[in-house]
Amino acid sequence: MTDRAAAARRALREQRIETPSWAYANSGTRFKVFAQAGVPRDPWEKLADAATVHRFTGVAPTVALHIPWDRVEDYGALAKYAGEHGIGIGTINANVFQDDDYKLGSVTNPDPGVRRKATDHLLECVDIMDATGSRDLKLWFADGTNYPGQDSIRARQDRLAEALREVYDRLGDDQRMLLEYKLFEPAFYTTDVPDWGTSYAHCLELGPKATVCIDTGHHAPGTNIEFIVAFLLRAGRLGAFDFNSRFYADDDLMVGAADPFQLFRILFEIVSADALGTGYTSGGAPIAFMLDQCHNIEAKIPAIIRSVLNVQEATAKALLVDTDALAAAQSGGDVLGANAALMDAFSTDVRPLLGGLREEMGLDPDPVAAYRRSGYQERIVAERVGGTQAGWGA
Amino acid sequence: MTDRAAAARRALREQRIETPSWAYANSGTRFKVFAQAGVPRDPWEKLADAATVHRFTGVAPTVALHIPWDRVEDYGALAKYAGEHGIGIGTINANVFQDDDYKLGSVTNPDPGVRRKATDHLLECVDIMDATGSRDLKLWFADGTNYPGQDSIRARQDRLAEALREVYDRLGDDQRMLLEYKLFEPAFYTTDVPDWGTSYAHCLELGPKATVCIDTGHHAPGTNIEFIVAFLLRAGRLGAFDFNSRFYADDDLMVGAADPFQLFRILFEIVSADALGTGYTSGGAPIAFMLDQCHNIEAKIPAIIRSVLNVQEATAKALLVDTDALAAAQSGGDVLGANAALMDAFSTDVRPLLGGLREEMGLDPDPVAAYRRSGYQERIVAERVGGTQAGWGA
Amino acid sequence: MTDRAAAARRALREQRIETPSWAYANSGTRFKVFAQAGVPRDPWEKLADAATVHRFTGVAPTVALHIPWDRVEDYGALAKYAGEHGIGIGTINANVFQDDDYKLGSVTNPDPGVRRKATDHLLECVDIMDATGSRDLKLWFADGTNYPGQDSIRARQDRLAEALREVYDRLGDDQRMLLEYKLFEPAFYTTDVPDWGTSYAHCLELGPKATVCIDTGHHAPGTNIEFIVAFLLRAGRLGAFDFNSRFYADDDLMVGAADPFQLFRILFEIVSADALGTGYTSGGAPIAFMLDQCHNIEAKIPAIIRSVLNVQEATAKALLVDTDALAAAQSGGDVLGANAALMDAFSTDVRPLLGGLREEMGLDPDPVAAYRRSGYQERIVAERVGGTQAGWGA
Amino acid sequence: MTDRAAAARRALREQRIETPSWAYANSGTRFKVFAQAGVPRDPWEKLADAATVHRFTGVAPTVALHIPWDRVEDYGALAKYAGEHGIGIGTINANVFQDDDYKLGSVTNPDPGVRRKATDHLLECVDIMDATGSRDLKLWFADGTNYPGQDSIRARQDRLAEALREVYDRLGDDQRMLLEYKLFEPAFYTTDVPDWGTSYAHCLELGPKATVCIDTGHHAPGTNIEFIVAFLLRAGRLGAFDFNSRFYADDDLMVGAADPFQLFRILFEIVSADALGTGYTSGGAPIAFMLDQCHNIEAKIPAIIRSVLNVQEATAKALLVDTDALAAAQSGGDVLGANAALMDAFSTDVRPLLGGLREEMGLDPDPVAAYRRSGYQERIVAERVGGTQAGWGA
Repeated sequence: MTDRAAAARRALREQRIETPSWAYANSGTRFKVFAQAGVPRDPWEKLADAATVHRFTGVAPTVALHIPWDRVEDYGALAKYAGEHGIGIGTINANVFQDDDYKLGSVTNPDPGVRRKATDHLLECVDIMDATGSRDLKLWFADGTNYPGQDSIRARQDRLAEALREVYDRLGDDQRMLLEYKLFEPAFYTTDVPDWGTSYAHCLELGPKATVCIDTGHHAPGTNIEFIVAFLLRAGRLGAFDFNSRFYADDDLMVGAADPFQLFRILFEIVSADALGTGYTSGGAPIAFMLDQCHNIEAKIPAIIRSVLNVQEATAKALLVDTDALAAAQSGGDVLGANAALMDAFSTDVRPLLGGLREEMGLDPDPVAAYRRSGYQERIVAERVGGTQAGWGA
Repeated sequence: MTDRAAAARRALREQRIETPSWAYANSGTRFKVFAQAGVPRDPWEKLADAATVHRFTGVAPTVALHIPWDRVEDYGALAKYAGEHGIGIGTINANVFQDDDYKLGSVTNPDPGVRRKATDHLLECVDIMDATGSRDLKLWFADGTNYPGQDSIRARQDRLAEALREVYDRLGDDQRMLLEYKLFEPAFYTTDVPDWGTSYAHCLELGPKATVCIDTGHHAPGTNIEFIVAFLLRAGRLGAFDFNSRFYADDDLMVGAADPFQLFRILFEIVSADALGTGYTSGGAPIAFMLDQCHNIEAKIPAIIRSVLNVQEATAKALLVDTDALAAAQSGGDVLGANAALMDAFSTDVRPLLGGLREEMGLDPDPVAAYRRSGYQERIVAERVGGTQAGWGA
Repeated sequence: MTDRAAAARRALREQRIETPSWAYANSGTRFKVFAQAGVPRDPWEKLADAATVHRFTGVAPTVALHIPWDRVEDYGALAKYAGEHGIGIGTINANVFQDDDYKLGSVTNPDPGVRRKATDHLLECVDIMDATGSRDLKLWFADGTNYPGQDSIRARQDRLAEALREVYDRLGDDQRMLLEYKLFEPAFYTTDVPDWGTSYAHCLELGPKATVCIDTGHHAPGTNIEFIVAFLLRAGRLGAFDFNSRFYADDDLMVGAADPFQLFRILFEIVSADALGTGYTSGGAPIAFMLDQCHNIEAKIPAIIRSVLNVQEATAKALLVDTDALAAAQSGGDVLGANAALMDAFSTDVRPLLGGLREEMGLDPDPVAAYRRSGYQERIVAERVGGTQAGWGA
Repeated sequence: MTDRAAAARRALREQRIETPSWAYANSGTRFKVFAQAGVPRDPWEKLADAATVHRFTGVAPTVALHIPWDRVEDYGALAKYAGEHGIGIGTINANVFQDDDYKLGSVTNPDPGVRRKATDHLLECVDIMDATGSRDLKLWFADGTNYPGQDSIRARQDRLAEALREVYDRLGDDQRMLLEYKLFEPAFYTTDVPDWGTSYAHCLELGPKATVCIDTGHHAPGTNIEFIVAFLLRAGRLGAFDFNSRFYADDDLMVGAADPFQLFRILFEIVSADALGTGYTSGGAPIAFMLDQCHNIEAKIPAIIRSVLNVQEATAKALLVDTDALAAAQSGGDVLGANAALMDAFSTDVRPLLGGLREEMGLDPDPVAAYRRSGYQERIVAERVGGTQAGWGA
């Protein structure tokens, strides 16, 4: 094994990927939600599934919650339950888009009463973070308008800034705000945080604990995501990723499924900035690498395992880039040589390296196959009958 | 009034715009369906609303049905009820995307049993057409795949062709197939009828009663829709429009709301080909001009009235183009002059012309205001309590 | 005339639109530059054409220069010449993309010698501004890479920041930097200032005299430009516009030609923020409203006149919005009412209002027709023979 | 070596990739053409370079010509010269976009005289094919309009059809027409052959010798190119590829550089239809696999070698797909399994397989390195001084 491969293995061993509780639940498009057998019926079962993914991959030790989808009486008990299953509770995701009051927006709604309600929910999420010991509050706003003239673009920014300020000031010393952006959907004319520039500008105004969250599916066609990654790393404001992939809009497919080369380029920027582990902090903590996907037609747990492996494979390739050769070609203006240095790593089959690493960690080298053989799927299908399956909004 | 304005008025008086039963029902995005008060609870109430739109606009005399959303015991009775309300039943829209069996497709599903079920539903829709006296069967397929490799692109075309053939052969002499295309959603990797070329090619194979339906929201960014209109008119295969508007994807906003200039250009191609009324036929009938929209946050009936007016205004402008000046500039290579001839009509305020026409037709010149004053909205809000509101899928 | 119309007329009378010297010259695509008769052969003739546009429109009193395309021995003499023709010299546009040295970038080039040369050119432009009395330095960088790995995205940001700092510090007290962004072209993988967020972030770092320039053709598909306008107005960093229009990429068509409704929405944000005239300043001065277009196939001077009129018409409509009705509908959550308030203004034919204003200003109400009748075109075609026509790069 | 690998090797040995004469010449964007040392000054030198690419890759035995860029007195002599260098002359590319007469179009120009001139050029290209023994006439039309109203969309289709008919009828029995489409550029409002549907429809009208050419860079964002490939293969009308890659528009980067996964998917459709070699014919001949690229900033010959290798690597991966496992997963509705079967091949490092194949063919396993060592580049730089470098348009 070369020095570079050995270093890659060490870095990969430390990598952490958070899975989202809602990805274990049913999801769909506006046209139809297809139910799957064995899907969790409550937060506890979601945690059990997340723990299963971690058991087979070894690098997914936390799970993100979505409030109110994962509302429970006793969050301390939930955290304890997670711990007993070998995982921890990660990011708390606020949800201010599924109440009838939010038809015209949440924190940017023209109605002050609705804004108050929405901000109160965000504050409640910080309370939950206190209970679960979570570090990160992730904010995604569905807020926007569908028709020109519907509301004042600028006034909505004022209202947004006001709510963010109140929530930011509520954060504890070790807590961080992750502000997500999204081009469109569900709003179809304007979105109140449509791009990284808007998120970044609000973070700058708020203070050092506010950082940008990049959802890889939330960009306009043609957007160079790794540029944004590099820019935010340089500015010290890259807080988190919501990984998924897309061919068209916010398709929420498995990360790496639509464009594995793009995922590699993104991770190469991370690796180049030494930001894969704890070498880089933003808002007082390393980058949170999370999945945010919808497994509408494929089996959920193996799809999430597959997604974790896809991130690992892209990371492994990024770690194998011959950075000396790359830098020499770049500084010498050798366009083809520099590109070849990058592509050489991308063309490498890293599955043997990752298989070896897993064996070293006491895991099966093929987590998908191991899961299939484990009987877990058959067990949850058999056991999880009756009750109401969890889904987006449940 | 000039000769051109007089001719425009005559043409506008004959214009027909079909409204869709489902636009009167609740709708939303995958994130949330916001319910509205007074929304219909069954097909009969949808027809009552459609009749109301016609009563105020005078140019919306038919309503499209969606099966099974509008399934009733006795379609003859439904048609009779429509007639008593001053409207008729128009296009029958098949729905093969909301049953659990259709997770991997309907007529293109790898499972022959599912394909049979889907095709049978399409044949049932022709039975319903016989009962309602409908001329047009509109086919939109949600079929496609989410992941590369998921299924054979080519085999799915074979299956599609086979199902279409069976349905085509079932059509009566005075019936027509409208084959819609859509770039993406709900499928995110491939869609089995993704563009006009695919729809057109299948129509050519099927025979003269198969024509293309253009939904204005179903295109890739940058697509020139009026080019497609002009091309299909030339080829004699433009059967119908599903009008709506979009800023991003298939936003299904009110037609003309996002890009009124584009709507004008589309209607100018229609007018140029003398295809607004009965001067052009495809598959044995004139073009069916239909709305297909989702009024997720705005009041539904006034939104549909507004949409009808938007089509009328674009049409009026298209009719006012000084075609002699335009043709002279075009043949003389006068780029600016030709553009100016078109823009002159677009810049014209046609609302007085349309207001006058409505008065001539015994209507209020401002249908939206007249609806607001009519008390209809208050009445349906008061009366339609209890029961289950209709929505996408209900 | 209503109060609103009277106020609109006053505002329109004060409106200022700058035309670009290079739009009077030949231009084209990478496939072909089509030469036109009568095109200027030097900066002096470009100024004469710009003065002509101002003579017929009354609202285009300055012309932007591009260095080195407009390099002359004596810039003071050039400014004097402009003054004698009734116009002034406006923005100075730097050009660091047409020298062989810039193949891999200018201020972001991996070669320090090339960076020095590029920065020196930018500093020279400030010298020219001193000589011409220009307030604004416009910076657009073609810098970027074509292939992944070609250069370090982050290192290029460092180099960019360093060059911008040096130039910023050279600016006089009454001078301003306008930093333009562009999604792609001529670079096809990364662009070093690809979006407004990047430009804005650099401006914040530089200081108060650095502001963002929005070229309306430089965005990804689906980008909501008026959102960016509103955001930058709120942040006090909107310095300038480069107006043009596009259907696909950076098409550089006449402003308002591709999407007149979008232009109206942009100007409505301007009007709403009272930023049309001197009511808003950024970097110490009002917004610079400029054209930046390529008249590849249409006659240049009438195309520029047409463009000025298009901006005026969009502005007039924006000024006519019933802001009281709009605000009431917005705050009441009346989606359709608010949209209707905006659309009512857009649907208005403002040409009579503008014609009347021109007559009041002693101008012909139809500037295009007046130009055509003036004999100017025939004169320049006859006189400008011999010599080398100016074009992009000459 | 497995059976599958052995079969792959056999198929790869037979693969043929045509290089374009103009890719050896200077090129650029509308902003700047950067000249490179050693670039050919005439068609003979282009052929010498193409022969060099073939010498190192072994799979690029033909070169496409562009008329008039490659106009010579004696095409028979040119063909003989090619043969002496071990290659043949391939496709003849017509050029009707670089004459001043074509400002408003070539075969669709409103002026009949210009149309005649353009059609005559196309006929001349068939004459040249007779002289060179070329099988394929490739037609790409820059025709279109920049402004709405500029010309009649429909009339331009009529003119296009008329010209195509005349040229089609002139083709010899063993000759074929390849009709290319392109979304936009250089025309910015409409393009007369904007998409595959338009090209396909004209081919159907013309007859069996007319086939579609897919340039991979000529699509709207989000277009699924492999769908088009599969559709045209099924319809028997896929005649050729112009390979290149893009992030934004028609960037003309090296094929496989922007999205290697997409290239793999395209080639998988080819392989699935047994259309890589002579197993599939369209218009009487197999698919012509060609490059069409612009090496604006990178060294040209090694970039073309790299591009050939990229096509080979994608092809090798496509050939390695376990089609039995894939088909089983597809028919069983196993979404993840089917995707995994495809991805397994994509994740494989095929460079050893290709290196072995090259050694078997008597070639260096690393053609780029071998070219670098060969001294060819130094020789052409030294020898090709004086004269005028060839470029787009020269």
